[in-house]
Amino acid sequence: MTAVLAPTALDRCRTSVLPAMADAVARLDPATRAAAEYHLGWTEADGSPRSGGAGKGVRPTLALLSAEAAGADSRVGVPGAVAVELVHNFSLLHDDVMDRDSERRHRTTVWALWGESAAILTGDALLALAAEVLLEAPSSHAAAATRELMTATRELVRGQVEDLSFETRTTVALEECLRMADGKTGALLAASSCIGAILAGAPEPVVAALRDSGRHLGAAFQLVDDLLGIWGSPAVTGKPVLSDLRARKKSLPVTYVLCRGGAEGEELAAWCAADRPAQGDSEDVLRDMAALIERAGGRHWASAEAEEQLRLADAALDRVCLPDGARAELADLARYLTRRES
Amino acid sequence: MTAVLAPTALDRCRTSVLPAMADAVARLDPATRAAAEYHLGWTEADGSPRSGGAGKGVRPTLALLSAEAAGADSRVGVPGAVAVELVHNFSLLHDDVMDRDSERRHRTTVWALWGESAAILTGDALLALAAEVLLEAPSSHAAAATRELMTATRELVRGQVEDLSFETRTTVALEECLRMADGKTGALLAASSCIGAILAGAPEPVVAALRDSGRHLGAAFQLVDDLLGIWGSPAVTGKPVLSDLRARKKSLPVTYVLCRGGAEGEELAAWCAADRPAQGDSEDVLRDMAALIERAGGRHWASAEAEEQLRLADAALDRVCLPDGARAELADLARYLTRRES
Repeated sequence: MTAVLAPTALDRCRTSVLPAMADAVARLDPATRAAAEYHLGWTEADGSPRSGGAGKGVRPTLALLSAEAAGADSRVGVPGAVAVELVHNFSLLHDDVMDRDSERRHRTTVWALWGESAAILTGDALLALAAEVLLEAPSSHAAAATRELMTATRELVRGQVEDLSFETRTTVALEECLRMADGKTGALLAASSCIGAILAGAPEPVVAALRDSGRHLGAAFQLVDDLLGIWGSPAVTGKPVLSDLRARKKSLPVTYVLCRGGAEGEELAAWCAADRPAQGDSEDVLRDMAALIERAGGRHWASAEAEEQLRLADAALDRVCLPDGARAELADLARYLTRRES
Repeated sequence: MTAVLAPTALDRCRTSVLPAMADAVARLDPATRAAAEYHLGWTEADGSPRSGGAGKGVRPTLALLSAEAAGADSRVGVPGAVAVELVHNFSLLHDDVMDRDSERRHRTTVWALWGESAAILTGDALLALAAEVLLEAPSSHAAAATRELMTATRELVRGQVEDLSFETRTTVALEECLRMADGKTGALLAASSCIGAILAGAPEPVVAALRDSGRHLGAAFQLVDDLLGIWGSPAVTGKPVLSDLRARKKSLPVTYVLCRGGAEGEELAAWCAADRPAQGDSEDVLRDMAALIERAGGRHWASAEAEEQLRLADAALDRVCLPDGARAELADLARYLTRRES
């Protein structure tokens, strides 16, 4: 299956959602607006305009496609698309503060430029704005859509709480790690995948099928992201080579090997528990660990599990009858998002 | 006028809102729930129960009274009461991180106990939870109430953004300072004062009168708070004597004197701009500055302005016809809140 429709869907989405995003962000007070526009990639740090923009717009595209999947015009999904993108960026702003990441997509992060308070407050404003914009949608289902999104936001927070707690724990069960990823990535993709349909007044089985599909897509997406964090090339990921291992992150392939035990699991556990050298781990050591994880089946397991989650995402859509065009675009987008070259 | 009804109203509110608050907070993931319950004063840091609880519950009480002002049972206002209290606490959690305050109401703050990330994430979860709870209210006006609250939240963020920006500026106009206070204090009191009426489906003029009244009450409340920050006794404020001057905070009485200029204004400006001694300003110096502000009319102006704002709060209520009981309780609560002994 090739992903020919996905780039078109993403482009189409950018064109129709960007003006609504710009209108929403324009409501913010000047200082918060400036930080938000910079974070979104619309401006440089000095406020001058910048072309390019941030991210692929996966979540807003899912929101528009979900309106079409419910038989409505994609415009019905626009307030949902804006809201999910605002929530996504709220979480990125706060995560960067907590993770002390000074770069995101090769650009200095908001907290690194203007201080923690600016990043915390800009995130706060984007979350409130998301609910506001969505509640103004010309749909009698705006309240239900907002509730869906706010519940997903709490799940997202729960995922981040768990992720941070893993850093200080020596053992994490694979089940816990999957549940964390389900919160951090799955919840918002699930909400994005059904929010347009909710706004369109779709029947509950259609909403549930889209939501479930998005949740499985989130799991697949996270598995692929974790694979790229170890074996991805910097050109594709925009991060240093072997970045997740460098940070000794308990990602899914790592957790799989740790939980599986055996000689490789024990060697990996010992390395994770050991003090990090002052100058960081050498690239040779990191390559050895990547090879160890691969030998122990971590890479194969994560790839197979990503495929399985993609299959489940597709199967969820088969539970209901969707318009052919939207159905094909959703399936294609899922493939596209999880087929990033390593 | 004596404030005989207010303590009863606050007590009555605590009794009817606390169980709903507890139900809402119980939805959070275990770690976030523990931090929220500690912050709310329900538990000690080790999780053991604690009697007392946090704060007077001004905002939830206003929310319940506003339902009664619309002729409804106060129970109609409960989801609004829970939501405004959650938003208030979201903002306290984040403010403590930004202001690096390690104590609030004589207790160690959440970030000081469990780190910044815990405080940021707990705040985030409370904001999302507030919208969620309110959208579940059994009222066809739940969406309108949530929109009101989210707009107020953005105003609150705007106020905090401005407040932080004042710290690094040498001059702040009185107008700017009043606008900042309107965001930081007025917006949420305004929303609290009308949210129960919105849930009850009150006509727009009633909602507007209650909202305006709350906004003026917020201004009065902030002026009194600023007066107490300079001339209040620690027993009443729970803060060190002369605390706002100690922090060289550009509070309203200070800004009034700075903007008024003259010999006193210049002396105060010079002190504000001077480097702080390593061990902090001596109490003698702080007392001299408090006397200077008083001589220059800052204390008198703030007291008179607080009275004027209270009068406007009351006049707003006179624009519409409200049930006698609720009308009296609202007026009484306003007096009570701004009559804290200095």
